[in-house]
Amino acid sequence: MSDSVADLIDRLHEEAALDHPDEETPDVGIVMGSDSDLETMMTGGERRGAYDAFVHELDFAEQTNYRDSPDERFTFETYVTSAHRTPDLMTAYADTAEERGLEVIIAGAGGKSADLPNMTASIAYPLPVIGVPVQEKSVDSVIGMPTGAPLVAVDAGKSFNAALSAAQILARQHDAIRDRLVEYHEELRESVGTVSQELHDGGTPLFQDRG
Amino acid sequence: MSDSVADLIDRLHEEAALDHPDEETPDVGIVMGSDSDLETMMTGGERRGAYDAFVHELDFAEQTNYRDSPDERFTFETYVTSAHRTPDLMTAYADTAEERGLEVIIAGAGGKSADLPNMTASIAYPLPVIGVPVQEKSVDSVIGMPTGAPLVAVDAGKSFNAALSAAQILARQHDAIRDRLVEYHEELRESVGTVSQELHDGGTPLFQDRG
Amino acid sequence: MSDSVADLIDRLHEEAALDHPDEETPDVGIVMGSDSDLETMMTGGERRGAYDAFVHELDFAEQTNYRDSPDERFTFETYVTSAHRTPDLMTAYADTAEERGLEVIIAGAGGKSADLPNMTASIAYPLPVIGVPVQEKSVDSVIGMPTGAPLVAVDAGKSFNAALSAAQILARQHDAIRDRLVEYHEELRESVGTVSQELHDGGTPLFQDRG
Amino acid sequence: MSDSVADLIDRLHEEAALDHPDEETPDVGIVMGSDSDLETMMTGGERRGAYDAFVHELDFAEQTNYRDSPDERFTFETYVTSAHRTPDLMTAYADTAEERGLEVIIAGAGGKSADLPNMTASIAYPLPVIGVPVQEKSVDSVIGMPTGAPLVAVDAGKSFNAALSAAQILARQHDAIRDRLVEYHEELRESVGTVSQELHDGGTPLFQDRG
Amino acid sequence: MSDSVADLIDRLHEEAALDHPDEETPDVGIVMGSDSDLETMMTGGERRGAYDAFVHELDFAEQTNYRDSPDERFTFETYVTSAHRTPDLMTAYADTAEERGLEVIIAGAGGKSADLPNMTASIAYPLPVIGVPVQEKSVDSVIGMPTGAPLVAVDAGKSFNAALSAAQILARQHDAIRDRLVEYHEELRESVGTVSQELHDGGTPLFQDRG
Amino acid sequence: MSDSVADLIDRLHEEAALDHPDEETPDVGIVMGSDSDLETMMTGGERRGAYDAFVHELDFAEQTNYRDSPDERFTFETYVTSAHRTPDLMTAYADTAEERGLEVIIAGAGGKSADLPNMTASIAYPLPVIGVPVQEKSVDSVIGMPTGAPLVAVDAGKSFNAALSAAQILARQHDAIRDRLVEYHEELRESVGTVSQELHDGGTPLFQDRG
Amino acid sequence: MSDSVADLIDRLHEEAALDHPDEETPDVGIVMGSDSDLETMMTGGERRGAYDAFVHELDFAEQTNYRDSPDERFTFETYVTSAHRTPDLMTAYADTAEERGLEVIIAGAGGKSADLPNMTASIAYPLPVIGVPVQEKSVDSVIGMPTGAPLVAVDAGKSFNAALSAAQILARQHDAIRDRLVEYHEELRESVGTVSQELHDGGTPLFQDRG
Amino acid sequence: MSDSVADLIDRLHEEAALDHPDEETPDVGIVMGSDSDLETMMTGGERRGAYDAFVHELDFAEQTNYRDSPDERFTFETYVTSAHRTPDLMTAYADTAEERGLEVIIAGAGGKSADLPNMTASIAYPLPVIGVPVQEKSVDSVIGMPTGAPLVAVDAGKSFNAALSAAQILARQHDAIRDRLVEYHEELRESVGTVSQELHDGGTPLFQDRG
Repeated sequence: MSDSVADLIDRLHEEAALDHPDEETPDVGIVMGSDSDLETMMTGGERRGAYDAFVHELDFAEQTNYRDSPDERFTFETYVTSAHRTPDLMTAYADTAEERGLEVIIAGAGGKSADLPNMTASIAYPLPVIGVPVQEKSVDSVIGMPTGAPLVAVDAGKSFNAALSAAQILARQHDAIRDRLVEYHEELRESVGTVSQELHDGGTPLFQDRG
Repeated sequence: MSDSVADLIDRLHEEAALDHPDEETPDVGIVMGSDSDLETMMTGGERRGAYDAFVHELDFAEQTNYRDSPDERFTFETYVTSAHRTPDLMTAYADTAEERGLEVIIAGAGGKSADLPNMTASIAYPLPVIGVPVQEKSVDSVIGMPTGAPLVAVDAGKSFNAALSAAQILARQHDAIRDRLVEYHEELRESVGTVSQELHDGGTPLFQDRG
Repeated sequence: MSDSVADLIDRLHEEAALDHPDEETPDVGIVMGSDSDLETMMTGGERRGAYDAFVHELDFAEQTNYRDSPDERFTFETYVTSAHRTPDLMTAYADTAEERGLEVIIAGAGGKSADLPNMTASIAYPLPVIGVPVQEKSVDSVIGMPTGAPLVAVDAGKSFNAALSAAQILARQHDAIRDRLVEYHEELRESVGTVSQELHDGGTPLFQDRG
Repeated sequence: MSDSVADLIDRLHEEAALDHPDEETPDVGIVMGSDSDLETMMTGGERRGAYDAFVHELDFAEQTNYRDSPDERFTFETYVTSAHRTPDLMTAYADTAEERGLEVIIAGAGGKSADLPNMTASIAYPLPVIGVPVQEKSVDSVIGMPTGAPLVAVDAGKSFNAALSAAQILARQHDAIRDRLVEYHEELRESVGTVSQELHDGGTPLFQDRG
Repeated sequence: MSDSVADLIDRLHEEAALDHPDEETPDVGIVMGSDSDLETMMTGGERRGAYDAFVHELDFAEQTNYRDSPDERFTFETYVTSAHRTPDLMTAYADTAEERGLEVIIAGAGGKSADLPNMTASIAYPLPVIGVPVQEKSVDSVIGMPTGAPLVAVDAGKSFNAALSAAQILARQHDAIRDRLVEYHEELRESVGTVSQELHDGGTPLFQDRG
Repeated sequence: MSDSVADLIDRLHEEAALDHPDEETPDVGIVMGSDSDLETMMTGGERRGAYDAFVHELDFAEQTNYRDSPDERFTFETYVTSAHRTPDLMTAYADTAEERGLEVIIAGAGGKSADLPNMTASIAYPLPVIGVPVQEKSVDSVIGMPTGAPLVAVDAGKSFNAALSAAQILARQHDAIRDRLVEYHEELRESVGTVSQELHDGGTPLFQDRG
Repeated sequence: MSDSVADLIDRLHEEAALDHPDEETPDVGIVMGSDSDLETMMTGGERRGAYDAFVHELDFAEQTNYRDSPDERFTFETYVTSAHRTPDLMTAYADTAEERGLEVIIAGAGGKSADLPNMTASIAYPLPVIGVPVQEKSVDSVIGMPTGAPLVAVDAGKSFNAALSAAQILARQHDAIRDRLVEYHEELRESVGTVSQELHDGGTPLFQDRG
Repeated sequence: MSDSVADLIDRLHEEAALDHPDEETPDVGIVMGSDSDLETMMTGGERRGAYDAFVHELDFAEQTNYRDSPDERFTFETYVTSAHRTPDLMTAYADTAEERGLEVIIAGAGGKSADLPNMTASIAYPLPVIGVPVQEKSVDSVIGMPTGAPLVAVDAGKSFNAALSAAQILARQHDAIRDRLVEYHEELRESVGTVSQELHDGGTPLFQDRG
């Protein structure tokens, strides 16, 4: 077995045994099948991603050390766990997720055989898993789980929405997250109102000529 | 305005004002676009549905009177709220959902313009909404929400899984639900193990000849 | 509630109460789900849009102030009313449309969950609504309305044709519009005839070498 | 040339020359590519059709003799005009439609080459034409008209909605039709309200056991 | 009616009345729905087109004057006849085709409503018509003719093959064309043989390094 | 090598050497990939087939003995030549087709890998080959020939139209076939005219009540 | 953990430790995601399956006891190992496959998330795995493996061909299997030859009238 | 017949007669339909190809002279054999493959009529053939072989995986290939482990800022 993968598997099992208090463990685990999915899953891609939603809209922090949590109350962590190149790492991650204190997993994969979200959901059960098809052609594979094997999916490439959905789940217990969700939405609404008024009152040509 | 719809809208607003304790309000609201979706959404259709999952696997009860909750701790309620024939009822339901004490909404609709889950999610925000495309051709319309408008979807017709996913969300706060989810899954696993052993050890022809 | 959206909703209801004469209200209301749909819906995109058809081919003017109509007899107005970010603005627009004197609505939206045309048609009923799928993937969602919920659709991105269709509806009452439609079509025919003759009589290589 | 087709073409041109008053000519012309489309287009098929909408919901009558209109004020007529087997009949019908006093045409065709609605719209221009794809596989061919050639489409097989849309167009001039449209919709709404209340208040099993 | 189109229609009917000998009339008529289809249909596009096949491989000439045929024995002519913008020109072309001495028609159109090949085949019957879907999305509309209405189709954009097929039809009567077809094919075969040998005997890297 | 296939291959080569006069050889060769395609290709299936067109509409006869032609002037013959189970028989048939006096080949195959029409066209070149996709899923494989390899296709399952198209090709040389094609079409037209008149003049309900 | 699954996992690991000679272990392992896939994967379904190919055409036997091999030299074994309900059983099977002496695995699964073949291939690597999509909608998920993760696929439901392909792999080492493959193919060829001759020489009507 | 193709056919038959020992003949034959497929099939395209897998990962050499094998024990050879332009060369290659000592064939073709892999598999039977659809639109044609005609397929454009699969087949007899396959996979695993650790421990922004 290759060392770096074995090291990660050992680490995950050790952390699962630590029994950290909920406040110090990551609330959301984000896994993806390849680091080439990073822009779509997190930030910097064609659309805003989960990182943008969590960090810039919802005041979460990224936890990079399981044993040393950031000051922010709500956190997420990020791993690459390939279903086809490292099935044992994927299994270990899903297997230890609940014990490691995660409340929700966001799992994204591309290609037509986007097995990572599905397998993660099957193994991490009964933790809720939100699947993100990284490409349009990944939608069918991610959403098509058989009866008895729950997974919920968002649209292709919309990891930003997956983060909002994860926050909606956490918000059932944490009013602070609910407040941030509401605040984000009001800003979104306000921006529509402003644009609509400008377009209507100025007329189409003037609106298109705005800087 | 037609009377029965106006009556329901009034009722929902009155209930929202009641401020019932969480234990007495339905935990899950199930809405569908038409009573022709009932078998797919609840029970008796091609596959097992949300009713089967909640009542037969997870010990939930259906709450038919908001003011008089059943003995079971966990409950769901069921309404038809058509996006295209009764947009005001759909709006009233989504608008009052959080105040009426719901924790999750399962919304199902068929056809290619399956707008009910999407509109319900947009209005009931920040409550989590699980969309059920009632037909294969409804999947795109249900899953395709724009960035900033969260909704999670299950596969076409799989309201049973939507119920499991709703329970996974509630289980973050309620260990009793988590235990029922685990128990259900072990039964499922056990049935695979039994069948696998019978098939292998008896051989294909013998297995096919079983009653 | 955000101020700009609330302001717009109030404005729409006030205008609906004004009881302006038909000649002074916009004849066509154009709504879109996002200002990113503007080029496809109006002008400046890959194809000519509704603005080009109305202003450059049919002598309509854009009315930017409901209380102060332009000199041109026939007008349209333009708003952004997002189904998922501002469902209440969308509802208010559709609800007041007939009272505000509109005769036809053109509603465009992109994405796979293109709910705006459908919800606008359901609420503005019995006003005719022409749906414009802003992207190819929006066609199914826009055209797929259930029996009893009328909406007519044009092809993906063809807001120019939606404007022609709206004019065809208005032309049943207004001969001036009918005349403009016929005139536009003759120009179109003439240009085919000219090109066909040039191609045939000059031959393919010569035709391709034209400036 | 075959006699029966030539006879019909002659008849259409003669009627066009008659200059009947609007009240006595059919308001809506319904054409279909084959009599095998009749159930989908009119009545008796999988869904309710245009005949059901016009006759049973909107008080129109079918006019079977151009020279002798029925007592009802609003009427439609029905013809088979195949684009591929009788292109000259199709052309004659579309060519004479406006002169024969039609206000809207509903044109339906099946198959992948559903050319009838498109050609009818191109020739009958500037009359509005509502295309009905008789099969799912006809949708693309019907909706895909090029820029400059307006046609509006409804979903596959939904001739009932095409009739409602035609009535919405006529209702811009005729309050009686508008009133019937509203009345129909209120009945539709009321039926949703009743079913929703029964389902919720009785619960799923009781509702399914209704006769 | 616009002059240039009317002129062309008159011209076609006059030519049909001339009764020219077969050797002097165009053998193949090429029509397309728009001059924007020219590169795909003739030459200069992504692939080689009908012009390339006829002129460069099969020794045909383009006939640009019906009354004055080129020296080459075999010829084709080219027109734009839009089904939706000039249905009467399309009809006149197809109607007069056999009388004008054409043996085969190649008809190409783009978009999802590619009606030109179908209508041309229906009207020009019993002349054989080869349909060219100018875009991938035009294939269904072109190939889907109903039983009793023959048209043969080639793949999207492959007007080059349509020309070869037209030549195969003409070759049943004209050995000179058959010989040119065989000669063209041998060159094609030879080029495969040469490349195959170079690739195999040189190996992949060397082959890729060829100029 | 299996005897029956080898026998057929020998027979085809012997017949090719006979140098029969054109009047005595089959004009059209019909091949299909499997005898399970017979109903779709010939007669007795969901739609009328090539046998129905040739024998019942166009006065062709089926030639079952190459050395002894039927009295009818125009004939076709029928073989099963599977591309995947008997590639050598398929090759021999295509290779000898022109020498055996065939003028056109109609080749049908089902499945997603419908290689028979394509390979037959490539080998029988320069004979024209009309491909019939036996199933909808065979269309892409049949129509998608590369540039330089001509084959013309009809729609899925429409062997009737393939027969008409083959007859259109033969009609360029044989007026008798042209006359039969015209006669068939007039009957088709007449039946549309009759039905259209009955539907319109009787009205929809009466028409539906016809026996 | 459920007992029957744990028992099977233990059993597989014990067998892997046995070090049986190749002649006594199953040559092919067949796994499927559910016993509802049995008819498609093995025998008795719409098409002939892997059981039919192995037992009736290629003289393999089904081995139902790992420790007691049948008399036949070549054998296969059959298990249900669900990716989503029993991921640990699936993992154990794939993990021990090479040590248990298997040479090829045939893995079939249905649904849109057909993960079993893919995960089995990833874990059993470097054993060759042939994936069988049990339904048409499973094809994409099965075939779409990323670069570096080999799996070969057959068409939807064609487990018969998967068995032939597995035999082709084994035939590289075992002439007896090669001989059986050739013999099977000659029978197949012979049946085409016989049918082709009967159809041609008898003519279509006679052939259709055969019992 | 063209010379270069005839020469190659002669060469293949002569080599088949040589009876070279297995160690000196190519183990894998790679054929493609056109030299435009070379980058996808071998090296230098969007993804790594078969050449990269064989030469850079698995220590194979390309054999460019059948009579003079390279020093490396395991080799492949490369030919262009077009199904539609050189069916006789394709047939000759497949026909002689087993006698020329090949153990597996990898056959790739593009377009919708990707017949080369299918025909090669049918003729080279019982040699195993791995089909590579060169484009996404080639997948259906390659995978859809009828029952009784085995071919295994990889995903569109994944010739790299086809090479791994071919090596998996050869590895059943050759431990050296098995070892190289395992070594390659461990490197792949290791790279995932390294990236996963870097991403998690550094956090998303730091990871994205890596050179």
